[in-house]
Amino acid sequence: MGLKTKAEYIESLRRLKPTAYMFGQKLTDVVDNPRLRAGIEATGATYALAEDPQYRDLVVTESPLIHEPVNRFTLPPASIADLVARVKINRLLGTRVGTCHQRCTGLDCLAALSIVTFDIDQKHGTEYNQRFLEFLKYVQKNDLTANAGVTDVKGDRSLGPKDQPDPDVYLHVVERRKDGLVVRGAKAHQTGSLSAHEIIVLPTRALRKGEEDFALAFALPSDTPNLIHVVGRSSLDTRELDGCDCGNVSYSKYCPTVIFNDVLVPWERVFMYGEVEFAQEMVSRFSAFHRQSHGGCKSGKIDCMVGAALTMMDYNGTAKAGHLKEKVIDMVHKAETLYGCSLAASYEGHREPSGTYFIDPVLANASKIHEGRDMAEATRLMIDIAGGYVADLPSERDLDNPEVGELIRKYLKGAADVPPEKRIKMYRLIEKMALESADTVSDIHGGGSPAAHRITILRESNVEAKKKAAKKLAGIGD
Amino acid sequence: MGLKTKAEYIESLRRLKPTAYMFGQKLTDVVDNPRLRAGIEATGATYALAEDPQYRDLVVTESPLIHEPVNRFTLPPASIADLVARVKINRLLGTRVGTCHQRCTGLDCLAALSIVTFDIDQKHGTEYNQRFLEFLKYVQKNDLTANAGVTDVKGDRSLGPKDQPDPDVYLHVVERRKDGLVVRGAKAHQTGSLSAHEIIVLPTRALRKGEEDFALAFALPSDTPNLIHVVGRSSLDTRELDGCDCGNVSYSKYCPTVIFNDVLVPWERVFMYGEVEFAQEMVSRFSAFHRQSHGGCKSGKIDCMVGAALTMMDYNGTAKAGHLKEKVIDMVHKAETLYGCSLAASYEGHREPSGTYFIDPVLANASKIHEGRDMAEATRLMIDIAGGYVADLPSERDLDNPEVGELIRKYLKGAADVPPEKRIKMYRLIEKMALESADTVSDIHGGGSPAAHRITILRESNVEAKKKAAKKLAGIGD
Amino acid sequence: MGLKTKAEYIESLRRLKPTAYMFGQKLTDVVDNPRLRAGIEATGATYALAEDPQYRDLVVTESPLIHEPVNRFTLPPASIADLVARVKINRLLGTRVGTCHQRCTGLDCLAALSIVTFDIDQKHGTEYNQRFLEFLKYVQKNDLTANAGVTDVKGDRSLGPKDQPDPDVYLHVVERRKDGLVVRGAKAHQTGSLSAHEIIVLPTRALRKGEEDFALAFALPSDTPNLIHVVGRSSLDTRELDGCDCGNVSYSKYCPTVIFNDVLVPWERVFMYGEVEFAQEMVSRFSAFHRQSHGGCKSGKIDCMVGAALTMMDYNGTAKAGHLKEKVIDMVHKAETLYGCSLAASYEGHREPSGTYFIDPVLANASKIHEGRDMAEATRLMIDIAGGYVADLPSERDLDNPEVGELIRKYLKGAADVPPEKRIKMYRLIEKMALESADTVSDIHGGGSPAAHRITILRESNVEAKKKAAKKLAGIGD
Amino acid sequence: MGLKTKAEYIESLRRLKPTAYMFGQKLTDVVDNPRLRAGIEATGATYALAEDPQYRDLVVTESPLIHEPVNRFTLPPASIADLVARVKINRLLGTRVGTCHQRCTGLDCLAALSIVTFDIDQKHGTEYNQRFLEFLKYVQKNDLTANAGVTDVKGDRSLGPKDQPDPDVYLHVVERRKDGLVVRGAKAHQTGSLSAHEIIVLPTRALRKGEEDFALAFALPSDTPNLIHVVGRSSLDTRELDGCDCGNVSYSKYCPTVIFNDVLVPWERVFMYGEVEFAQEMVSRFSAFHRQSHGGCKSGKIDCMVGAALTMMDYNGTAKAGHLKEKVIDMVHKAETLYGCSLAASYEGHREPSGTYFIDPVLANASKIHEGRDMAEATRLMIDIAGGYVADLPSERDLDNPEVGELIRKYLKGAADVPPEKRIKMYRLIEKMALESADTVSDIHGGGSPAAHRITILRESNVEAKKKAAKKLAGIGD
Repeated sequence: MGLKTKAEYIESLRRLKPTAYMFGQKLTDVVDNPRLRAGIEATGATYALAEDPQYRDLVVTESPLIHEPVNRFTLPPASIADLVARVKINRLLGTRVGTCHQRCTGLDCLAALSIVTFDIDQKHGTEYNQRFLEFLKYVQKNDLTANAGVTDVKGDRSLGPKDQPDPDVYLHVVERRKDGLVVRGAKAHQTGSLSAHEIIVLPTRALRKGEEDFALAFALPSDTPNLIHVVGRSSLDTRELDGCDCGNVSYSKYCPTVIFNDVLVPWERVFMYGEVEFAQEMVSRFSAFHRQSHGGCKSGKIDCMVGAALTMMDYNGTAKAGHLKEKVIDMVHKAETLYGCSLAASYEGHREPSGTYFIDPVLANASKIHEGRDMAEATRLMIDIAGGYVADLPSERDLDNPEVGELIRKYLKGAADVPPEKRIKMYRLIEKMALESADTVSDIHGGGSPAAHRITILRESNVEAKKKAAKKLAGIGD
Repeated sequence: MGLKTKAEYIESLRRLKPTAYMFGQKLTDVVDNPRLRAGIEATGATYALAEDPQYRDLVVTESPLIHEPVNRFTLPPASIADLVARVKINRLLGTRVGTCHQRCTGLDCLAALSIVTFDIDQKHGTEYNQRFLEFLKYVQKNDLTANAGVTDVKGDRSLGPKDQPDPDVYLHVVERRKDGLVVRGAKAHQTGSLSAHEIIVLPTRALRKGEEDFALAFALPSDTPNLIHVVGRSSLDTRELDGCDCGNVSYSKYCPTVIFNDVLVPWERVFMYGEVEFAQEMVSRFSAFHRQSHGGCKSGKIDCMVGAALTMMDYNGTAKAGHLKEKVIDMVHKAETLYGCSLAASYEGHREPSGTYFIDPVLANASKIHEGRDMAEATRLMIDIAGGYVADLPSERDLDNPEVGELIRKYLKGAADVPPEKRIKMYRLIEKMALESADTVSDIHGGGSPAAHRITILRESNVEAKKKAAKKLAGIGD
Repeated sequence: MGLKTKAEYIESLRRLKPTAYMFGQKLTDVVDNPRLRAGIEATGATYALAEDPQYRDLVVTESPLIHEPVNRFTLPPASIADLVARVKINRLLGTRVGTCHQRCTGLDCLAALSIVTFDIDQKHGTEYNQRFLEFLKYVQKNDLTANAGVTDVKGDRSLGPKDQPDPDVYLHVVERRKDGLVVRGAKAHQTGSLSAHEIIVLPTRALRKGEEDFALAFALPSDTPNLIHVVGRSSLDTRELDGCDCGNVSYSKYCPTVIFNDVLVPWERVFMYGEVEFAQEMVSRFSAFHRQSHGGCKSGKIDCMVGAALTMMDYNGTAKAGHLKEKVIDMVHKAETLYGCSLAASYEGHREPSGTYFIDPVLANASKIHEGRDMAEATRLMIDIAGGYVADLPSERDLDNPEVGELIRKYLKGAADVPPEKRIKMYRLIEKMALESADTVSDIHGGGSPAAHRITILRESNVEAKKKAAKKLAGIGD
Repeated sequence: MGLKTKAEYIESLRRLKPTAYMFGQKLTDVVDNPRLRAGIEATGATYALAEDPQYRDLVVTESPLIHEPVNRFTLPPASIADLVARVKINRLLGTRVGTCHQRCTGLDCLAALSIVTFDIDQKHGTEYNQRFLEFLKYVQKNDLTANAGVTDVKGDRSLGPKDQPDPDVYLHVVERRKDGLVVRGAKAHQTGSLSAHEIIVLPTRALRKGEEDFALAFALPSDTPNLIHVVGRSSLDTRELDGCDCGNVSYSKYCPTVIFNDVLVPWERVFMYGEVEFAQEMVSRFSAFHRQSHGGCKSGKIDCMVGAALTMMDYNGTAKAGHLKEKVIDMVHKAETLYGCSLAASYEGHREPSGTYFIDPVLANASKIHEGRDMAEATRLMIDIAGGYVADLPSERDLDNPEVGELIRKYLKGAADVPPEKRIKMYRLIEKMALESADTVSDIHGGGSPAAHRITILRESNVEAKKKAAKKLAGIGD
């Protein structure tokens, strides 16, 4: 027990036996499947960082719960400093992996549960918080990675859970047993679900009376029977499977759909059941934390993109082009905007009754709204700076071909002092950062849809104070 | 001879024996390689359209050169109506293939050559225009597809051709022989080069005294000896090779790098050689025509994207969401802006001394500047509307798996009356339109870099008249 | 009768005796009031242009109605060439006056009436078209300027006309008499109403059964009894009144609210009354024409702004700053986008049953949507380029002060060869173009609200064809 | 001595006898000139806030220098909390005055001087810091307002100070005397210079060897002999002079040009002279602080704009229009972005050797870059929401006219329960916030030009670390 090394983390995954499918095949070896492994490596970076003397103090802290050193990725924030550390670690990791490290969603669930289970207990006299804290101790003591089972597949989006022709499109209880609850449903976009030890499930939306069976939060090991991970396609998935033209030489991302095909949840792992009026709070707490997380990791990804763009300018011989520098500035500005708003959301956080600290939701959503628009724009600028070979660069296998390999090297050479292999590798990384679907689509849809971020920022603002100020200046009494 | 059907076009490609490589392998069968075939099908759509009674009058017209009916894709515009027809046909085809049809670049070369060979002859007493017209007759009589060999690989971009450590990074003459010129170099991003009968080469930039060997225009069959097509990677390339999860069920795009490894160009196919002062005109004419072309086909692609977004709203049950409609409106607006500026550039065209009509370059570049920014934004909006499954949708092979296929169908069902297969197919098409690199990167880099478009719009505007108008209103005399 | 010179136009206004108020005072001399005169001069420029040999052919054409030469500002378009000429003349005038010339709204009413009166007659057997043509002959023969009384004051915007607590907030008939209709109401933002001979009134919105008294179109002299023009404030209005620091030395704009305080409309001037189902058509025809008009004049205004920005770069010594050139390019691009879409809307027009030509509404609205966003951005760029003295430049009266005049000249000198007076004048013009409210707010609200432009572009697009195309590419049958 | 009430502040200004001109006239009574008074009232609000029990704790703190309570507007930040308080107070004041309160520039000078005088002394053994601290004590003990004399008029901007034909366009020493330095030059855009007790002068740009006479910092009373304030025009200036249609019933802004016509600076008020290598640091410290300040006050101004927009929606009957809500959300998002980045810049500040705390310049500039673009956009959105009467609303004097007053009330009524006077007042406030030049132009040019903000953000970013990260991910060794 205690902090895991990256190697121990990977070993621990080998001991799990999840049910998983990919491209029509059942997977027997998750850890060594090269596509999934690239994702596991990204999560592994969160463990490696804790081993790194330079960053250990940033990443490892003492848990007020178990009074032992823990990786912050198992720590619901207990101070403003904890909130701020989340953003800084995420930016650091984003820069290190150049994609999503996939460990924040689980932490955001832990943080949300630590607040809301307490609030439910206060109102209903339930004992969810105690159960949750037991689970949290287990997570902290074993330095586990958890996954956020939040997004239901949703069926017809114009209908609420109980009005769906097939209610299973929202995960819900189909049987209440002595030993626990049997649940059915499916959660989409389960970032790194096979890199996680535990799957934490929360509701995905506000619920009404009559939807008690959907008002459900719990946690289960990722290899629980009847839990099925279906790894979907992403745009560059076969690159990793083929071990060729990967771009990012170490890291990637994958997001299965996870099907709960009548899965038993033991009572000690049930953290909410039936309290429909808290569903909205659960999802909004989770989302707010997750939007804050994005502000860190996505600014870190832009850092990589800026670095790639500037390096490519060196390699192309365009380092002095003023119009390209302006584009780099636009990229830097976008990174700092995400980061600044997310940091401010953290510094302006406050303590909840449970003792967990919560961020300022207006500023966290301000960051996310920028992400939803600006990551695509930063990507476009990176492609603009790098040049057309982001589209159609010859394969590294062509480089090995005796007939054309040397010709390709000859013609892909840029600046005189740069070997063509370097330029080719950087193009490939840029292609990966620009066109990998699992990563880029989360800029838009991660942490809820763009419309949700917008509604939140208005709802959480004090518009009445603003109206009052304007009326006073205009000389209008009430 | 005469107009080819789509079937005849494909047959005619079978008779070519080009040298081609892909992913380290030499290709022996271009036409039936599924990745290349999807591109050939897209070009084939330009032939099919001419067979379609509904559009024949739009696409087929009489050539003033051979006085026979020709497909407009072999016709340098000889009237305002011809200029306008280019844009309308391109929009129609963009909507039909949902990607690039890959036949416009050759036409844009023909149009540029028809103007500039005439102008060179006027100045130098050469006979390029006559040679070119013979070639054009051949193209028209055989309804050929040509490819635009414009973009050199460029080496160190801070250096001109003659200052490069390796001058071969700009295609140039290495030997002048009785039977022709021997040329060496490489052209990048050769959209559909293996779908073309002919490769037309133009210079890629302005040239100076001393760079005569780079001032070169010619045409060659695509299977000329020592001409090597290296098909690069695009983001979704293995989908077509595997015949699985293609998204666009018929069409795609590919862009080889074409290496001229000491290739002989017979004199009758040389359309410019040594007249450095015309290099700039050649490339700017080509680029202006090509930017006009994009205004048509890319607005057509947005039409598909709008159609996909609206269909997905139907399938998701979100057809009534006001904020999504606003996003559709933004997409429509972008399509119409590209189209409007490109159409206006055509209507405002004028006759050149050679008799070919040229577009208004300011308006054509206005369209292209929008494309360079707005296609990425339209794509982002489409993803926003469609939802997160653009990132990570299970494979169609999973649907066939007996253990999970039915579960996936169950959980991917959206609106009650829509079979999940339809929704899955539409998600796949959206993934293709959003994340296919060969197509999306051309939005930014096709027709020259965004900086080039901007410089052109300023250079071609009458800024002195604008200054004079302002001074007059301010009461400032000269 | 026949074409008026500018001098004759101004004389003709002197013969009118409108009821007008400004800043609490009744106006006795409209033509020589310096604030109104600057607006009259702008409209006068439409007459002067017809006198200018360089532009006479563009502006003057033969009316198919009276078979005499007329100024195009009295001509409902009878051909594609007429539609195109509208845009070109408006751009030319926009550049010449640097603000709104205020004569297009009346023309847009004439154009709408020429279509819709015909359509109503076809359905209802009424004789509105004949009445209208008589009026049009009178306008053409006398080269009159008309004003568009379209925008009602609207009261509570969540309510339709008949549900308003005070129905007078939509102009309507309060009495039907033998000699005509008595109408009551008020029209807002009546650009140049005192520079016009005639006020043409159209409905401002779609109407329902029961709102017959609001379904009303007519024309009246601008000095009809009980018609009251209340000239409102604009941001720089006292500059013209004081004859000091005007910026634009000749031209300006003003927009009264016109109150119809029980005004009699003789029957021969009633062009629609009661046909509620045509109200929507009337307003949408007018709006579409007016949005096309804006595409011309606003691109002309940007031309002035570009000229002012470039001149200021000369005067400031910043002509070589690359980042400022990029901003000029952005401004040029915006002008050409407005112009291109508006031109395309014209070229793609078609003949209506009445013989009048109508523009493509999708492209006209594409232009207007850009205007609504991009004029503000072009203005911001101009201010950025020019520098901070747009905010707070000393008055020209300070220049005349013996104690500080020379000091101000000394310190406002920029580039060595430019007298400070020139730089001061150019700053003042920029201030005028950037901060004159009557002009700049019309960028946003002229021709209907931005939301209206957006709704139109979606409604007029063929979305079903787009959905069909996407489905076909995705392999989805109907 | 000690904290001043607002009344005492205004009285203290009466005791000053500055030399001032406006519109060609010498001003004899600054405090009761209604145009200047509106600016003085805005600065007065910084005093009133300290009197307000609700905010006293936020605004008043103990000075570590004089160990007495001081208004934070006289306090160089001595902790992170001080940095953060600056932003929060500025937002609060921005909301309260709806324009610029004009007291931050002096504080930003004090903060910059407290750092840089110390640094110069460390290097050169001078005693600037001690002199400065004496001055600071005087400012704090008397609760004075200072003005920032930073922006020189600059002459030909392509030339440095010593290359100008007239070197006086950069303020400099023309005589060195026993009792002090005689300086000559002019500072532009001197926000609130007549509302200030002291004028603090700093260099406006980096300087080179040979420009020692320009490397100059000092402070002087605002009524020092030979110091001439020339109050320039702003767009709505005559409204305040006429006491009519002011919009903002209490507050406004004005920005004179201040001419130093051979002014004597006693040695004890000289804080820098000749140390050219510190000129850049002085201006960049000042600018960074000032950009942070803007992040607070401009977000506060947007708060007013949001309040005005929402109130107008209530008054117009459009409170439920979804598209208008979306525009309000965009406005809120812009405010929070400015605020978030500025707050983050404060929380991420650090202690300088002098003990003063300095903000993170990357994040402060990230905020300012948004301001430069987004204030104009927020303004556009406010106008869009409010409606066309922002352009041309009748004067309040018309309301008093017996003939048309009632008619105007009748026709300007919006929602049933809102008296028209309220709606009119709110329109007038919106006009003021949108179109007042002195305020709106500072969004773009305040704190240095937009280009300066951009250069800073790149220069202060660690681009090498970003390149290194990208290379590592691409598998490229050094």
